[in-house]
Amino acid sequence: MALLTRIRGPRDLDRLTPAQLADLAEEIREFLVDAVSRTGGHLGPNLGVVELTIALHRVFDSPRDRILFDTGHQSYVHKLLTGRQDFSRLRVKGGLSGYPSRAESEHDVIENSHASTVLGYADGLAKANQLKGHRDRPVVAVIGDGALTGGMAWEALNNIAEAHDRPLVIVVNDNERSYSPTIGGLANHLATLRTTQGYERFLAWGKDALQRTPVVGQQLFETLHGAKKGLKDFIAPQGMFEDLGLKYIGPIDGHDITALESALGRARGFGGPVIVHCLTEKGRGYRPAEQNDEDRFHAVNVIHPDTGLPVKTAGKDWTSVFGEEMVALGRERRDLVAITAAMLHPVGLAPFAKQFPDRVFDVGIAEQHAAVSAAGLATGGLHPVVAVYATFLNRAFDQVLMDVALHRLGVTFVLDRAGVTGTDGASHNGMWDMSILQVVPGLRLAAPRDADQLRAQLREAVAVDDAPTVVRYSKGTVGPAVPSLGRIGGMDVLRGNPAPVVDPVPSDEGSGGIVRADVLLVSVGAMAGTCLEAADLLAAQGITSTVVDPRWVKPVDPQLPGLAAEHRVVVTVEDNGRVGGVGAAVSQALRDAAVDVPLRDFGIPQRFLDHAKREEILAEIGLTGPDIARQVTALVARLDAEPVDA
Amino acid sequence: MALLTRIRGPRDLDRLTPAQLADLAEEIREFLVDAVSRTGGHLGPNLGVVELTIALHRVFDSPRDRILFDTGHQSYVHKLLTGRQDFSRLRVKGGLSGYPSRAESEHDVIENSHASTVLGYADGLAKANQLKGHRDRPVVAVIGDGALTGGMAWEALNNIAEAHDRPLVIVVNDNERSYSPTIGGLANHLATLRTTQGYERFLAWGKDALQRTPVVGQQLFETLHGAKKGLKDFIAPQGMFEDLGLKYIGPIDGHDITALESALGRARGFGGPVIVHCLTEKGRGYRPAEQNDEDRFHAVNVIHPDTGLPVKTAGKDWTSVFGEEMVALGRERRDLVAITAAMLHPVGLAPFAKQFPDRVFDVGIAEQHAAVSAAGLATGGLHPVVAVYATFLNRAFDQVLMDVALHRLGVTFVLDRAGVTGTDGASHNGMWDMSILQVVPGLRLAAPRDADQLRAQLREAVAVDDAPTVVRYSKGTVGPAVPSLGRIGGMDVLRGNPAPVVDPVPSDEGSGGIVRADVLLVSVGAMAGTCLEAADLLAAQGITSTVVDPRWVKPVDPQLPGLAAEHRVVVTVEDNGRVGGVGAAVSQALRDAAVDVPLRDFGIPQRFLDHAKREEILAEIGLTGPDIARQVTALVARLDAEPVDA
Repeated sequence: MALLTRIRGPRDLDRLTPAQLADLAEEIREFLVDAVSRTGGHLGPNLGVVELTIALHRVFDSPRDRILFDTGHQSYVHKLLTGRQDFSRLRVKGGLSGYPSRAESEHDVIENSHASTVLGYADGLAKANQLKGHRDRPVVAVIGDGALTGGMAWEALNNIAEAHDRPLVIVVNDNERSYSPTIGGLANHLATLRTTQGYERFLAWGKDALQRTPVVGQQLFETLHGAKKGLKDFIAPQGMFEDLGLKYIGPIDGHDITALESALGRARGFGGPVIVHCLTEKGRGYRPAEQNDEDRFHAVNVIHPDTGLPVKTAGKDWTSVFGEEMVALGRERRDLVAITAAMLHPVGLAPFAKQFPDRVFDVGIAEQHAAVSAAGLATGGLHPVVAVYATFLNRAFDQVLMDVALHRLGVTFVLDRAGVTGTDGASHNGMWDMSILQVVPGLRLAAPRDADQLRAQLREAVAVDDAPTVVRYSKGTVGPAVPSLGRIGGMDVLRGNPAPVVDPVPSDEGSGGIVRADVLLVSVGAMAGTCLEAADLLAAQGITSTVVDPRWVKPVDPQLPGLAAEHRVVVTVEDNGRVGGVGAAVSQALRDAAVDVPLRDFGIPQRFLDHAKREEILAEIGLTGPDIARQVTALVARLDAEPVDA
Repeated sequence: MALLTRIRGPRDLDRLTPAQLADLAEEIREFLVDAVSRTGGHLGPNLGVVELTIALHRVFDSPRDRILFDTGHQSYVHKLLTGRQDFSRLRVKGGLSGYPSRAESEHDVIENSHASTVLGYADGLAKANQLKGHRDRPVVAVIGDGALTGGMAWEALNNIAEAHDRPLVIVVNDNERSYSPTIGGLANHLATLRTTQGYERFLAWGKDALQRTPVVGQQLFETLHGAKKGLKDFIAPQGMFEDLGLKYIGPIDGHDITALESALGRARGFGGPVIVHCLTEKGRGYRPAEQNDEDRFHAVNVIHPDTGLPVKTAGKDWTSVFGEEMVALGRERRDLVAITAAMLHPVGLAPFAKQFPDRVFDVGIAEQHAAVSAAGLATGGLHPVVAVYATFLNRAFDQVLMDVALHRLGVTFVLDRAGVTGTDGASHNGMWDMSILQVVPGLRLAAPRDADQLRAQLREAVAVDDAPTVVRYSKGTVGPAVPSLGRIGGMDVLRGNPAPVVDPVPSDEGSGGIVRADVLLVSVGAMAGTCLEAADLLAAQGITSTVVDPRWVKPVDPQLPGLAAEHRVVVTVEDNGRVGGVGAAVSQALRDAAVDVPLRDFGIPQRFLDHAKREEILAEIGLTGPDIARQVTALVARLDAEPVDA
């Protein structure tokens, strides 16, 4: 690492010779494989942009010229070149973020790891530069071909194309894949661009062809080329980017630093919006990644650096439980289809796709289209299952509401990585879904607590044919089964007396004085273990409790208010933002039933969480058995002490 | 209306002669002007699609062939041709919807009036048809050029282009405008397509040009044209649609029924995805509309049919108060910029645009880009004001959360048409914003109660430079000013004692027994009048109340729990969905402060509302002074009767 360790900032690149740059690229690849195999992280994408990032920092002058990364998982090389070379605590609490981070460096701008945003930021920044008279500050946006399939990219391109005089360089990092190979018409068009060079190549071909027809020679070619109403006005421009009005440079070998610098230099001098189309290879230079056709080591856990094999094998995870059950359901129901937004493997749909290749649709990084095309599929008589990470469903909120729910269509949304996910930072935590989905009329939402429940509730979800259903679960290994002692309404009783509620809807005179226990703990999904632990700790204080898992948290079980009325305190525990979540819904259900039992809602505080392990975050925010028990004990003590007429 | 009245269904069109079809089109235009001038409605868009809709129903066999309309406000002609000719109660409770409605007709499919969705549905339906073996059922999607600027359209096109064997006809209704002229690179490209015909025209030109070079003659042209690696492989295809892999037919005169039928017939037989590019004129055949450059009578209130002038002039509306204040603010602050998603006039930004043309950005029907480009503008040191209808902000939820709030950027979102809007039906009511925005960390939300407050709160909003702010207000005429008696914290006291809270954060022993009044009414925005009326009615029952307007409803005012503790009951009243709204936020704030005073939250029930006047809906859902007073009276009576140890 003789060269790398001497790079303290981008300008240190200026003095390196071409040979040294090649050596530096080599050093960076070694560094990445070594460091990321120890911590886990986005290995493949960063191996693919080593030369590109070096070239960007040589041609542009960050942070004066803003270099923006879409999604941001490909920013490791950028970090290395901007003074951040301690990767020992990558994605660990207090260590480097796995994404750009404004707290880390003035060279970082966008922290949102949701794809396809960069062109919108770039358009805004370019507009601001223009209004402020900074005409000499180009904005540089690096975006993958996969992210170009997202609607935001289109909206931005449409706007950027109008701004002929705003310097904006769009670097398309084309590795032909997002997680998986990129799909759709755009991918086909990029493939065409990769193998042809449109007009310029036509000219070359034309010269050649015409010279082979000697009667005509150069003269005719010039007639054609130089005709007053020139050729370019009649044949359409050379591709869709130029159709939109965007200058196109490419394709460029994304691993040839000299070629990259030349192209980026031309783009820099252009003075308006320009696309530089760079061809890169995800996982480049690391054989285990290059040989992996699934995702080229898009993101890895801790691996052995030589073999690329995982160092430890985790237990069965939620994702694979879902994936297996989908295959079983697919065999039973021919009308079941699956949709993924460019994440076939990460969401567990690969086995389904293998069994039923005609019944799975990868729509690109396009959550809106995932939802609305699901509405179309359901209108056509099928039952679609849309599997996405919980945080990415935010992109499709309007479509879930207006296209699926308003139309009373049977579409199942399966939300993986719900709740605190941790190491990927604020924008990857799935802490929003159970709040925003509460407002969707008719939508039913299940939060399974273990593998058996996931299987059962997925079956219940796909049986609904006139409303959207949602099944949401955590990231990672699924815990042991948590048995039910019985049912009250649709709620599993995990602790306490499972006898039915005596007075399901309390009269105006209250519950009649029946006291089942001091505390009703309403546990959501994977919080069951936490709630049972809290109940044990409360029992040690002489406080009795009932623990229920409502299974379906929306709508609130009609028996819940009656059950609540048989307790002195209601406590809800959810792995979701506190605001507007299940606790808020239970609170409202109690109000509507005139059950004014005090309620306390435990969940994720409504702020953006720094990256750390899930367990560390849960401890930090007090979403643990001991924390809950401590607070509930204090509340019960207060109620004991309150004057009866308060 | 000799012909029109005999059309009971689409197949009645089959027997008409070309001359009769022209007469029918004439009759339909007369009908539309006459009917819509009486009720108000989307006049301009429907006048533009008379011939197109006739041709669609002659070529395709609805409902077997599904004809889908994007946005849906251009479906009046479709209604007339599918058995719905009573327009006397258009957009009135119990009358015809202003959009497609599945309850009205089997010919209607999409009810969501949010733009750019149709291609997604169409993709889903085409996939379903393929899986079900219905290869002979083409799906037809009608979309405006404006809606093509939305990201959903792009996501769908990218997917549709892959499906070479799914019959899907995309009819681009190109009138060069959404509400206003369509913007961006796509609009420029459509303009190019309008005036050239790409490859075919090149061939014609080529023949001509080469024949004028007699040395060469036909022979060379054939060399060029027929070269083994043909011309088409070298020059790019004729436009971005074909670049994506979509067959393109056009441009077609959208007012020539014969030409339309011919083009649609070719498209129908194509067997795969095909775009039919139709040129239409919004407002066609109605002089007042044709002469209106602002929006060609996109949507009108009741007008005089001859002149197109409004029959009655309403008082000053919320929109124009905002528009005026923006101009004043624009003069004071050079860093203030404005963004609209293709609705410059409807959201009131036209005066600002006139004064500061360089500082307003129409981004197309692209709410996502409105928000994310605002993030970019704010990153670049400006303060953007994004003005949209409340219901359309749903499209940008993820961007508000992840791009603006996570990055702590000063962007102001102004939400017009918030709350119950009524006549445009379920998808236009702005009943979601105050719920989903509650989850956004750091976001501040104001709901002004009158014009003065709107002006003041807009100023407060744009003064915030490190967080998103939101100002939301109703549709239509702004009511009279509602004076404040004083402030408690940031809350205006509208009735009752404005003395400060004695014990802002009650101790564990409660509020100390201070009783300010029986009921605390927390009024949100334009609900102030309703709350004051309820307070009067309660007073007549001997129940005292305090009425406060928190002004900023997010975050909850820190003084609110203390004030609540000085009352026996807290009542929240908001023109927003009840679930997760201001009531829920106040309830949680009380819980967090251990103030367990009973709370009742009044708002819009969480269901999709049928179209009707705003006042009718408010009465139906019980969001009126008398309804609130009645329920609160009952609650107080229950509390009076309750045993003290309950």
